[in-house]
Amino acid sequence: MKEVRNLSLVMDFYELTMSQVYFEDGLKDTEVVFDLFYRRNPDNGGLAVFCGLEQIIDYVQNLRFEPEDIEYLAGLGQFTPEFLDYLANIRFTGDLWAIPEGTPVFPHEPLVRVKAPIIEAQLVETALLLALNHQTLIATKARRIVQAAEGRPVMEFGARRAHNFDAAVMGARAAYIAGCAGTATTYAGQKFGIPVLGTMAHSFVQSYPTEYDAFLAYAKQFPNSCTLLIDTYNTLKSGIQNAIRVAKEYLEPNGYRLKGVRIDSGDMAYLSKKIRKILDDNGMQDCAIVVSNSLDEYLIESLIHQQGAKIDSFGVGENMICSKNTPVFGGVYKMSAVNHDGEWIPRIKISENDEKTTDPGYKNLYRILDKEEGKAIADVIALQDEVLDPEKDLTIYHPMKKWKYKTIVGGTYELRPLLVEIFRNGELVYDCPTLEGIRAYSKREMDTLWEEIKRFVNPQVYYVDLTEKLLDLKLGMLEEYK
Amino acid sequence: MKEVRNLSLVMDFYELTMSQVYFEDGLKDTEVVFDLFYRRNPDNGGLAVFCGLEQIIDYVQNLRFEPEDIEYLAGLGQFTPEFLDYLANIRFTGDLWAIPEGTPVFPHEPLVRVKAPIIEAQLVETALLLALNHQTLIATKARRIVQAAEGRPVMEFGARRAHNFDAAVMGARAAYIAGCAGTATTYAGQKFGIPVLGTMAHSFVQSYPTEYDAFLAYAKQFPNSCTLLIDTYNTLKSGIQNAIRVAKEYLEPNGYRLKGVRIDSGDMAYLSKKIRKILDDNGMQDCAIVVSNSLDEYLIESLIHQQGAKIDSFGVGENMICSKNTPVFGGVYKMSAVNHDGEWIPRIKISENDEKTTDPGYKNLYRILDKEEGKAIADVIALQDEVLDPEKDLTIYHPMKKWKYKTIVGGTYELRPLLVEIFRNGELVYDCPTLEGIRAYSKREMDTLWEEIKRFVNPQVYYVDLTEKLLDLKLGMLEEYK
Repeated sequence: MKEVRNLSLVMDFYELTMSQVYFEDGLKDTEVVFDLFYRRNPDNGGLAVFCGLEQIIDYVQNLRFEPEDIEYLAGLGQFTPEFLDYLANIRFTGDLWAIPEGTPVFPHEPLVRVKAPIIEAQLVETALLLALNHQTLIATKARRIVQAAEGRPVMEFGARRAHNFDAAVMGARAAYIAGCAGTATTYAGQKFGIPVLGTMAHSFVQSYPTEYDAFLAYAKQFPNSCTLLIDTYNTLKSGIQNAIRVAKEYLEPNGYRLKGVRIDSGDMAYLSKKIRKILDDNGMQDCAIVVSNSLDEYLIESLIHQQGAKIDSFGVGENMICSKNTPVFGGVYKMSAVNHDGEWIPRIKISENDEKTTDPGYKNLYRILDKEEGKAIADVIALQDEVLDPEKDLTIYHPMKKWKYKTIVGGTYELRPLLVEIFRNGELVYDCPTLEGIRAYSKREMDTLWEEIKRFVNPQVYYVDLTEKLLDLKLGMLEEYK
Repeated sequence: MKEVRNLSLVMDFYELTMSQVYFEDGLKDTEVVFDLFYRRNPDNGGLAVFCGLEQIIDYVQNLRFEPEDIEYLAGLGQFTPEFLDYLANIRFTGDLWAIPEGTPVFPHEPLVRVKAPIIEAQLVETALLLALNHQTLIATKARRIVQAAEGRPVMEFGARRAHNFDAAVMGARAAYIAGCAGTATTYAGQKFGIPVLGTMAHSFVQSYPTEYDAFLAYAKQFPNSCTLLIDTYNTLKSGIQNAIRVAKEYLEPNGYRLKGVRIDSGDMAYLSKKIRKILDDNGMQDCAIVVSNSLDEYLIESLIHQQGAKIDSFGVGENMICSKNTPVFGGVYKMSAVNHDGEWIPRIKISENDEKTTDPGYKNLYRILDKEEGKAIADVIALQDEVLDPEKDLTIYHPMKKWKYKTIVGGTYELRPLLVEIFRNGELVYDCPTLEGIRAYSKREMDTLWEEIKRFVNPQVYYVDLTEKLLDLKLGMLEEYK
């Protein structure tokens, strides 16, 4: 057996203490609604790429406490036997709606909505957050890097700097969804069917008496897919010369072509231009130049546009797999409604900081698309029971200020509900798309956004507004608490 | 079954392509030495805390390819049947030496030394790096935060922002080794015996009709360990007042005391001083104040020293579990020697950047301790076959400049070998210490360092020098390649 894991106990301990109180207080069947959302885009960007849903489906579906878990909890001496008996048989029986993976998403909108008995809603909190925070972070970063490469393949090379095993494997998945061409992490290739790639390290070149010997040995084994690492000793004086020698003396006479050369140090603009010329002068226009040294979206953009580097593909490591500039995606999970005798009572978390005040109530989320151009205009959050008719004018409001609004003329727009049903009464009712399907969907969705939103520096803000009914509810509650 | 994982394929694909070349070239029994080291301390600090050894022991001991792994690799169409047969039965048969977990370590010294047949040494590379890079990163950050708290307990609260499941669990372990008092991640408590702690979220307070009702419900369930979250509505006007009411009306009449109050927002210096006075005025000097809002070592130091905050313990999340300021620990794995017919031929990786030039040869590492004070003076890297006699004078050299040296008088110092034997001919010969043992050892070792090295800003550099013999070898090789 290769992999069996019950990760149910990867939860903050307070989920359990709170749950015991609910249980002992007779509140265990109280239904609540929680929203999962985030407040700021990583890297001061204009969007995030939602990712990690499949992993949370897996967690929610398999939520259960093994006998050894119950024993461990009992040993802590804080829980009642009745509560532990209840835990021993608990399963998730609620509803869960989420945005499909790969969708571009924006601050403050519900990415996941959980409606469930309060204990169940609470017990899934930590895992939902950690899986979505991680994969969304990496997909968001990877998308920026892929965008910078302007169609040149980007390989994810970061396993060795990832925050442990899951981060390497799930990070590779997220990066692939966001448009990377493949990964160096073999397990991610096996588990998800992502293309895997990789050729040699400096140690390989060092382990042979000469650089030429190393290159020739590699070419003999992999004549069809031979990319040589040419910077172990001296890129221009030795590496590229030995690579060409192997191409001319071994590969070409045997009917093969040298696929590529890789440089992992030095000035990539200068070296790539020099190397391109040397290769071309040797009739090797089809030999690709791959670079892989501390790259991120800014460096790639500068290499291509300011420096005219001659690079055909990029290998990206730590800056992508750790989202180095912004290594935290701040998703939060907040209660928005409690059901009392069949009625949904809205809940709000108030903060002096407007940005941290939550949107109350049981809600829905729509993307408004321009009918003619197919471009996204804004997202709008409505109350669950509101019916929006795209044939009528729609006025959407700033999340705090009623005097800031915009009206979209009826008939000119489409309304797409963004939250789709994943679990109904604890039953999985969603067909997970294939990874290739998610990747293609994500690319299409990205095309519905104006370029101004995808800019790296100071992007245009995409609006996530409220319906009048929701804003009135929120302002009313704020007034009441004041 | 709770957890079974074969993570062997979490390796960069090039480990496999290189290995096939070695195999087909008849080099599979060639012994090599690799060193794992790093170049810079995170956060511009003066040291790192070595961590993750137990996880690499687990990986190395269980390195094996399952039939489905071989099938996957075969399906890629790049590997020969002979090589795949060889892989199907491969086990690690080499020697591995490492520094014990919890030891303070410094740039450029070998943290792990692998001597093994070349394919085996290569196949373990990625996992060694990712486990050590991750856990060392988190332990290093956690130690700084614990130091800033000056004896006040620090709880690790970061699971929801961790880079996926392993990062949460292994990060909790690393943080505990570095001195955290416990974790909120229940699974880490179960798996490693780390104390777990946690009480309530804002959603708990929101789910009751009033804050007082919520506090009372919690106090009734956990009268012995009742810490109340007092900032859901208004910390001073409502939260602290309701907490005191529960203490006076329920806990104290029943023979209990309110254990603590927690604040998760607002100005922590101002609020903690106000709250301390209110608690003291109510005879609740024993009620602790816990804070948990975006803390790191700098903020904790400032709260305590500049602002006189009255805080008894800290909960730290994303800044610790992601090492937010420096989310990458840059450990690398470099070949330093190849065995040819019984003789160790040193290998060097040269770079224009001195810092990136490696130390060649099969080496050893010693810590030099002042005999009288017990303080660490420097670390010295020697060749494996050198015998250093602490009764004699020892001259240690800058890693590149022979005119920079220091002589330590014989008889005044102790020499402690830092690398200990973990695997001998593939057999585990090391008794892993308990987690508590590692934690206590780490604390003791930290006391052997001068305070100047542990300073957060602009710390004193701790020297990792070379013996004359090693430096001569290195300079000779550099001369030769020039």
